[in-house]
Amino acid sequence: MFNIQILILCSYVLTAFSNPIEESTKDAAITTLIKEFNLKPFQNKMVRNKSLSEIDNEKTSQYWKSNGLRAVRDRLRLHPNFNTARNVILFLGDGMSIPTIAATRVYLGGEEMSLSFEEFPYTGLSKTYCVDHQTADSACSATAYLGGVKSNSGTIGVTAAVNKENCTAMNMKENQVDSVARLFQMKGKKTGLVTTTRVTHASPAGVYAHTANRHWESDADVVKDKADPNKCEDIAHQLVYGKTGQKLNVILGGGRRNFIPQDKIDDEGSKGRRTDELNLIEQWQKIRKQRGDKHEYVWNKKQLLQISNDTEYLLGLFEPGHMQYNKERDTETDPSLEEMTEQAIKVLNRGNSNGFFLFVEGGRIDTAHHRNWAHKALDETAEFAKAVKKAVDITKEEETLIIVTADHAHTMSYAGYAARGSDVFGYAGKGSDNDLYSILNYANGPSYKPLTEDGKRYVASQEEMNEISFQWPATVPRFKETHGADDVAIFAKGPWSHLFTGVMEENVIPYLIQFAACVSTDIPCLEINQKLP
Amino acid sequence: MFNIQILILCSYVLTAFSNPIEESTKDAAITTLIKEFNLKPFQNKMVRNKSLSEIDNEKTSQYWKSNGLRAVRDRLRLHPNFNTARNVILFLGDGMSIPTIAATRVYLGGEEMSLSFEEFPYTGLSKTYCVDHQTADSACSATAYLGGVKSNSGTIGVTAAVNKENCTAMNMKENQVDSVARLFQMKGKKTGLVTTTRVTHASPAGVYAHTANRHWESDADVVKDKADPNKCEDIAHQLVYGKTGQKLNVILGGGRRNFIPQDKIDDEGSKGRRTDELNLIEQWQKIRKQRGDKHEYVWNKKQLLQISNDTEYLLGLFEPGHMQYNKERDTETDPSLEEMTEQAIKVLNRGNSNGFFLFVEGGRIDTAHHRNWAHKALDETAEFAKAVKKAVDITKEEETLIIVTADHAHTMSYAGYAARGSDVFGYAGKGSDNDLYSILNYANGPSYKPLTEDGKRYVASQEEMNEISFQWPATVPRFKETHGADDVAIFAKGPWSHLFTGVMEENVIPYLIQFAACVSTDIPCLEINQKLP
Repeated sequence: MFNIQILILCSYVLTAFSNPIEESTKDAAITTLIKEFNLKPFQNKMVRNKSLSEIDNEKTSQYWKSNGLRAVRDRLRLHPNFNTARNVILFLGDGMSIPTIAATRVYLGGEEMSLSFEEFPYTGLSKTYCVDHQTADSACSATAYLGGVKSNSGTIGVTAAVNKENCTAMNMKENQVDSVARLFQMKGKKTGLVTTTRVTHASPAGVYAHTANRHWESDADVVKDKADPNKCEDIAHQLVYGKTGQKLNVILGGGRRNFIPQDKIDDEGSKGRRTDELNLIEQWQKIRKQRGDKHEYVWNKKQLLQISNDTEYLLGLFEPGHMQYNKERDTETDPSLEEMTEQAIKVLNRGNSNGFFLFVEGGRIDTAHHRNWAHKALDETAEFAKAVKKAVDITKEEETLIIVTADHAHTMSYAGYAARGSDVFGYAGKGSDNDLYSILNYANGPSYKPLTEDGKRYVASQEEMNEISFQWPATVPRFKETHGADDVAIFAKGPWSHLFTGVMEENVIPYLIQFAACVSTDIPCLEINQKLP
Repeated sequence: MFNIQILILCSYVLTAFSNPIEESTKDAAITTLIKEFNLKPFQNKMVRNKSLSEIDNEKTSQYWKSNGLRAVRDRLRLHPNFNTARNVILFLGDGMSIPTIAATRVYLGGEEMSLSFEEFPYTGLSKTYCVDHQTADSACSATAYLGGVKSNSGTIGVTAAVNKENCTAMNMKENQVDSVARLFQMKGKKTGLVTTTRVTHASPAGVYAHTANRHWESDADVVKDKADPNKCEDIAHQLVYGKTGQKLNVILGGGRRNFIPQDKIDDEGSKGRRTDELNLIEQWQKIRKQRGDKHEYVWNKKQLLQISNDTEYLLGLFEPGHMQYNKERDTETDPSLEEMTEQAIKVLNRGNSNGFFLFVEGGRIDTAHHRNWAHKALDETAEFAKAVKKAVDITKEEETLIIVTADHAHTMSYAGYAARGSDVFGYAGKGSDNDLYSILNYANGPSYKPLTEDGKRYVASQEEMNEISFQWPATVPRFKETHGADDVAIFAKGPWSHLFTGVMEENVIPYLIQFAACVSTDIPCLEINQKLP
C-alpha cells in the first residue's frame, strides 16, 4: 500500500509538472494505476432494484438479444398517428439536462430503469441558445418553445428587438410574440398552466406574458427597478388582465405574494408584495363572476382535490413563493405536481369537446441545480415523470399529443466509474490524490470549497452526501450554479409525435404543435394532412 | 467597485458558512449581483460566422417563424425508407457526448451551425451502462453497439459471463459474441473498419475480437499480464487470423507496432512490440496472396490515395500507436479520417453489388477528453463530422443506412453565460470570487490545480486557453479524466433510419441494423417488411 501511495504521488507530480505523457512512453506504474482505477468497478452503496437472478440473466447473450429484438419489434409496430391533436400537453422540465435524466434513473432504482416519458416512441434534440446568449435562461427559452421565436435573455413573449427593461419596445405590437396557448384560445379550446414555481416565474409566464424583464413579477419589482408600472405591466397583472392570461382556464402553482397587496396577509399568514393595492386574486374572481364563469380559487391541497365537477376556471396558488421541493413539502396541505396535473386535465377535459392546451412545468429541477442540490434536482425530475405518467394515463393517445422537453441544460456531470447499481449519491472512485470523488459534480456553484487546512481537497463523507441538501462539488465558486448550453431532449407521443425527431432549434416546437393541432391559419395543416399517406 | 467587492466577499462567506439562503429572504445585494452576473451577456472574443445583418434578422418574429415552418415542412416531407439496406455505415464518435457536439458547433462558427450528422432526419438516445459498471468503457460498449450484448468493462466480444482476464471463459463458444460485421460477411457482403486509434483498440476490436482484456492488443501485452498467449489470443492476431478479422476487406488506422516483432523497425523507424516473432503485416499479405485476393498494404497517405482500382483487401497502418490528432498530424503523410473513409467506401463499393458494412471511429475525441484537452476533442469531432459528410456524399440514401453515435459520454460541461457567438474556448463570466471562469470545464482529470500561492483559484489567461493542448479546469485530480454515464445521441439516415428514435439500450443498435439490412436469420425482416405500409 505504501508503494502504491508513493507511486500515486510521483505520478501526480509528473502529470502536473511535465509535458503530457505520451501513450507510447507511458510509465508502467501509471498504467497499473490507471487500470486499477478504471477497470475495477468502484464498490459503493448499492441501490439497484434488480434481484441477483436477474443480474445473472444479464450474463447471457440471450437476455440482451431478447430485449434487443423486443425493441426492434416495438419500433416496427409503431404507426404514425395522423390524427389532428385535439389536446396538447407540453411538459417542461426546467433545466432537465440529459445527465439529469440519466442520473434520475439510478435514483429510481437502477441504470436499466426508464422515466415515464423515456417510453415515448419519438425523441429529438433541442438547441436552446438565445439571440444574445450562448446559454439560454428560462425567459428567452420560454419565448422559443411556447412562442416560436428566439429572443434575448431575461425577456419573455417579445422578440430580440426588445432589450432588457425597454418598455416602449415591449409594448410595440410588432415586437410581441404570442404563445401557442393563444392560438388554442382563438380556436375556442381550453388552456391552462401548472407549475411548481411561482405562476409568474419565467417559464409559465411564457404562456401569457410580454415583458422586457422576467423579474417584473409584481408591480413592486417594476418600481424597484425604477420603471413605471403603468408602462411596464407586471407579470401577475398580465396573468389576470392580459389577452391570453385572462382566458386561461387553469392556473396552478405558487407565487401568491405577487397577487396581493403588501399590507395584506394571505390565508397562510404571509405578506403580499403589491404596491398598487390591487388584490389580483379577488380581481380574478370578480372578472369570472361578471362573465358568469363557474370558477374556483384554492390555496391548499384539500381544496384542490375537492373542486366541483363543473368548474370551468380554476386558480390555485399554494405558496407565497415557489412551491416547496417535493422532499420538503407538507403532503397534507401542498399538492404534488402529479395531483395538480390531474386536476388541471379534469377541468380542461370537461364540458366541451373542443380540446385543450396545457403547459406543465417541473420548475424546481432548475432551482435545485442552481444550488448544487443534485439530490433535490433528481427527486424533482422523478416527480415530474410521475406527472407525465398521470397525464398519459388519463388522456387518450389517439387524440392527445404529449411533448416532454427542457428549456436548457445545467452543468451537473455524471462521472465514472462506479459499479453497476451504485447509489448515484455515492462515490465514483478515487482521484490521483488517492481520495474519493463523487459521481455527481458541477462546473460551478455555491458548493465550491477551498482546500482544507492541511492543503487537501475537501471530500465529503457518505453521511454528508446522503443529506438531500448536500451541495455537490464544483470547480468554480458562484452564488448560483449556471445553466448549460448543451442540447436537451424532446420526447413525444400521440398525434404527429413522429415529427418530433431529429435535431431542431427549440423554437420549432410550437410550430410542430400548431400543425399537429391545426390551430394556426399560417400552417396549411389540413391540406398537408390530406396529401400524406 | 470597492462596495461590490465587499458585497461579493460577504455574500460568499454567508453562502459558504450559513444555511442555504431562502428565496424569500434573499438579500437585496445578492439579488443585484446575481442579476449582474446572470443577465448581461459576458463579453468575450467573438467567433461567429453570421454577419451583422443576419443577426438583425434574428430580431424579427418572421425570421424565426420562417425557419420554424421550414423545419415543419422538412419533417412532413420525410418518407420512411422501407428498402432493405444494401450498405450500412456505423460511425462512432468515441466519447462524443452531447455537450461535445453542442460545443463543436460554436467551434465551427456559431451556435446556429449544424454538424453534418445533425442534419440527419432521425435521432434517438442510447443508454450506455455496462453489466458491471454504471459508466461504460469503450470495450463493453463496443460489444453492445456492435454485438448486441452488454458485458463487463474491459472485455470485448464476450458476454458478462467472462470476467477480466479469464481466458478459459473467453474461449468458450457460448460466451463469445459475434459483431454485426460477421453477419454481413456470412451474407457475402464486404466489411471494413476505419479508426483514428490503433486498429486493435477497444472500439474497432469490437468488430472482430473476443477477449477477456482489451489491453491484450499484442502478445507482449498478454505476456506482461502473466497470461498465456496461446490460450489468450491477442487482438492483432485475431484481426489477421480470427474468423471475422480475416474476412475484413478494409482495415485502416494506427497501431502498427502490435503487428510487428519487437526486434523489427517499421517503415517509419519505430520498433514493433510482438514477442512471438510474427510479422502480422506480412502474414496478412501472405494469406491474401494464397487466396488470390487483390490486396494492398499501405502505411502513408500517398499510398492510400493511390491504391489500385481493383483492390479487394486493404490494410493501412499509418502510425505505430494511435494516429496523430488532426491538429498535430503531418498532412503530407498522415491521412485524415475523411480520406480514410472515402478510400474505404471506394474499396467496399467496388466489384460486387452485394453491399457492405463499414465501421468508422473518430477515436481521438475520447483520448483528448481524457487529458482535458477540450480543444482537440472538439476539433476531432469536427473531423469526424467531415468523414460523415463524405460518406453521405459518395453513397446513395436509398440503399445506404448511415448511423452516427457514441459509446459513452465524458464529464466536460458547457457552462453559461457567455454572449452569443463567443469563442467556446473563452470565459463564460465571473465567479463569486470575482474572477473569470471558462465556458468548458471537466469534473475531473489531470488539469486539476490546487490554489495559487496567494490562496486564489487558478485562472488561466486567454492566451493559455488558446493553446490546443490547454487542459480545461477540473474539480478532482485524476490521471485520466473519466467517462460520463449520461446518454449519448444516435443520428440516422437511409433505409429504416426511422426506427432509430426513442430512448434505447445501446445494444439495440445492431438488431436494428440486422433488420434494416436483412442479414440475420433470427429476425424475420422480409415477413415484417411485407406487412408494413
